[in-house]
Amino acid sequence: MSLIVQKYGGSSVADAESVKRVARRIVDTKKAGHQVVVVVSAMGDTTDELLDLAEQVSPLPPARELDMLLTAGERISMAVLAMAIHDLGAEARSYTGSQAGLITDSAHGAARIIDVTPGRIQEALDSGAIPIVAGFQGVAQDTKDITTLGRGGSDTTAVALAAALNAEVCEIYTDVDGVFSADPRVVPAARQVPQITYEEMLELAAVGAKVLHLRCVEYARRFDLPIHVRSSFSDRTGTLVLSPEAIQAAIAEGTAMEQPIISGVAADVNDAKITVVSVPDQPGRAASIFRTLADANINLDMIVQNVSLASTGRTDVTFTCPQGSAAAAMQALDAKRDQIGYEDLLVDDQVAKVSLVGAGMRSHPGVSATFFDALAEAGINVEMISTSEIRISVVTRVDDAKKAVQALHTAFGLDADGEAVVYAGTGR
Amino acid sequence: MSLIVQKYGGSSVADAESVKRVARRIVDTKKAGHQVVVVVSAMGDTTDELLDLAEQVSPLPPARELDMLLTAGERISMAVLAMAIHDLGAEARSYTGSQAGLITDSAHGAARIIDVTPGRIQEALDSGAIPIVAGFQGVAQDTKDITTLGRGGSDTTAVALAAALNAEVCEIYTDVDGVFSADPRVVPAARQVPQITYEEMLELAAVGAKVLHLRCVEYARRFDLPIHVRSSFSDRTGTLVLSPEAIQAAIAEGTAMEQPIISGVAADVNDAKITVVSVPDQPGRAASIFRTLADANINLDMIVQNVSLASTGRTDVTFTCPQGSAAAAMQALDAKRDQIGYEDLLVDDQVAKVSLVGAGMRSHPGVSATFFDALAEAGINVEMISTSEIRISVVTRVDDAKKAVQALHTAFGLDADGEAVVYAGTGR
Repeated sequence: MSLIVQKYGGSSVADAESVKRVARRIVDTKKAGHQVVVVVSAMGDTTDELLDLAEQVSPLPPARELDMLLTAGERISMAVLAMAIHDLGAEARSYTGSQAGLITDSAHGAARIIDVTPGRIQEALDSGAIPIVAGFQGVAQDTKDITTLGRGGSDTTAVALAAALNAEVCEIYTDVDGVFSADPRVVPAARQVPQITYEEMLELAAVGAKVLHLRCVEYARRFDLPIHVRSSFSDRTGTLVLSPEAIQAAIAEGTAMEQPIISGVAADVNDAKITVVSVPDQPGRAASIFRTLADANINLDMIVQNVSLASTGRTDVTFTCPQGSAAAAMQALDAKRDQIGYEDLLVDDQVAKVSLVGAGMRSHPGVSATFFDALAEAGINVEMISTSEIRISVVTRVDDAKKAVQALHTAFGLDADGEAVVYAGTGR
Repeated sequence: MSLIVQKYGGSSVADAESVKRVARRIVDTKKAGHQVVVVVSAMGDTTDELLDLAEQVSPLPPARELDMLLTAGERISMAVLAMAIHDLGAEARSYTGSQAGLITDSAHGAARIIDVTPGRIQEALDSGAIPIVAGFQGVAQDTKDITTLGRGGSDTTAVALAAALNAEVCEIYTDVDGVFSADPRVVPAARQVPQITYEEMLELAAVGAKVLHLRCVEYARRFDLPIHVRSSFSDRTGTLVLSPEAIQAAIAEGTAMEQPIISGVAADVNDAKITVVSVPDQPGRAASIFRTLADANINLDMIVQNVSLASTGRTDVTFTCPQGSAAAAMQALDAKRDQIGYEDLLVDDQVAKVSLVGAGMRSHPGVSATFFDALAEAGINVEMISTSEIRISVVTRVDDAKKAVQALHTAFGLDADGEAVVYAGTGR
């Protein structure tokens, strides 16, 4: 009997009717002969409503208490879901993150899972019950305080539990049919991707595709655990997130189609671009910029340093960071102005990061050329460039983001009515 | 430094503004030099809203899951209250019932506290913080499942914690100024009772006065812990619930007024009266009635058996029980009709139980006479009578309840403009 972990997001359990529909799906899975462990997020807008309430009481609530507050959301959804399953004649028992053994560090609001001890979940399974586990939450190993894993953390809960329980697959249910080659609201011709590697999914998550949480994919990759992203509103097969080896094996078996070179195109409009103008081009100056930002807990994304002009001995350092961190970054750099020795600080939040992701680009050197040709033909100016082995990202004006994504989607043959560029699936 | 446990009910923390007001009061208590532990109920109508949600999903939800669901209510209020206190510059930390060491049996929905191990609360106090504890909830010793103590259970949480922490007093904050000699909505001249014994408070709680939960008073009596019932909307002194000895000591010291013979009058309109008609007057027949009801978990209140008529050898047995249990009681008795041998079953929910409570009636034999005279003068028919050492209760038509309470309140001089009958406070 195989074990399946199913994770349902807030939109899948938004109201009593949705909860009943999800309960039916869970019971059907069990009746089909599987063991099922369910991870559930807070219902609909509950988390936002709780954040609103906190804001009414305190402009800057302590993180420990915010975690205590927010975890009430999953407590409600998991209990109600267990009731709905019970009402269908199956036995379900709800467990908090703490009860399910989700042990984390004590970084409230963004805790990391450091151990999973699902003894009570295994007992529930052994007794024939369906355990319903609160997503997004855990308990700190040292303080025993309740923690949350940050937005989207329920995906990570599901994958971590699936790994600890040796599940066959972790099904992530959402309100779309899976991972798409681009945001269908931007590119109506976007196609659903049948399978994708962990690495590609990581790159897509990092560049703004919101289907899966970054940490959840990292976790799945570490344990080589298959993720199946699918819709809770249909029975269609969604997108499988797998290791390259598993994908090759599936292609060899004929159970998967060949992989296209490019998996998807994404745009992220939530970054700000900050330029530190005219920094002395001396050893240690750039380092002091990044030390300052690290001390202020700013997550940097792209970083570019201009070629220094011999005439001035000075250079500009430009980086991107989340818009929400931009003010803190400016403040931190301003406080170290004399030490760093720059002349000016510029911030620009009218930028977008447009990215192309595909494991196939490793072995296809023409990808970059096609990429920049497509943007040039669409008349889009590129302000920064950053690449990884399987990703190309550029910063453009925010107003150009949509046009850029559409141009790239078409150029790489990703449009549903076009022909995707595929590779033979022989190498990685 | 004295330790005070303060309990705030749902009406005291109904919205963000109320939460801030309560936070101010807590911080003021701390600033006045006390250690403070706070127990809080769910905000306003949260519990009812959660019950509504459960009902939408399942007509008969499992008790374990209902407890999991309902405990989300205090989780929200305690976290928000901790935030509000933090915002005033004091340190507060919220704790679930489980974290605070409220160990119960596993009777979901009506769990009993079997141990209190407030190690984390004591640590928080030692570090100078204000612990905020979720009322109404605990953790089952054997199953480790989350339990609730039943409606009004937050009072019990507060008293149990106060006893375990050796607090000086347990302050129960509510939306009225304390315990009144009658419901002020029924008797506008009702006066606030400055002090009352545990026994009187128990009797009042049992007969429908809703100020304090029965179990909470039992707990306080067992540990001889003073309770101070007062309003969270004013700074007035409320009602002290104490042992008779403590009251006598206070009167001797001149810090308390003399005790009136009668503390209060109450009416309870939530009972139903059931009559088992024409039961053979043989040994064991009445016992089989009560065994049947006990097996069906029906809580009986008053029981009356008519004098048997020699001509028929049969008798009628009448009892009262909560209206919510009447259908189950009828069903259980119906199933045993042949065994008990009765002729008919009558149910009547148009009844009220009107009660007079006062420790002084022990030593004042004239109380009963005044009681029945007052009802007779008011033209009220008495259907059943039951008495304890410090209480007289009668069943009347529900339409007569208000008139009965008013008549008794006046007859015993309890009206605020009248003169209460007092005793010297020398004996018990």
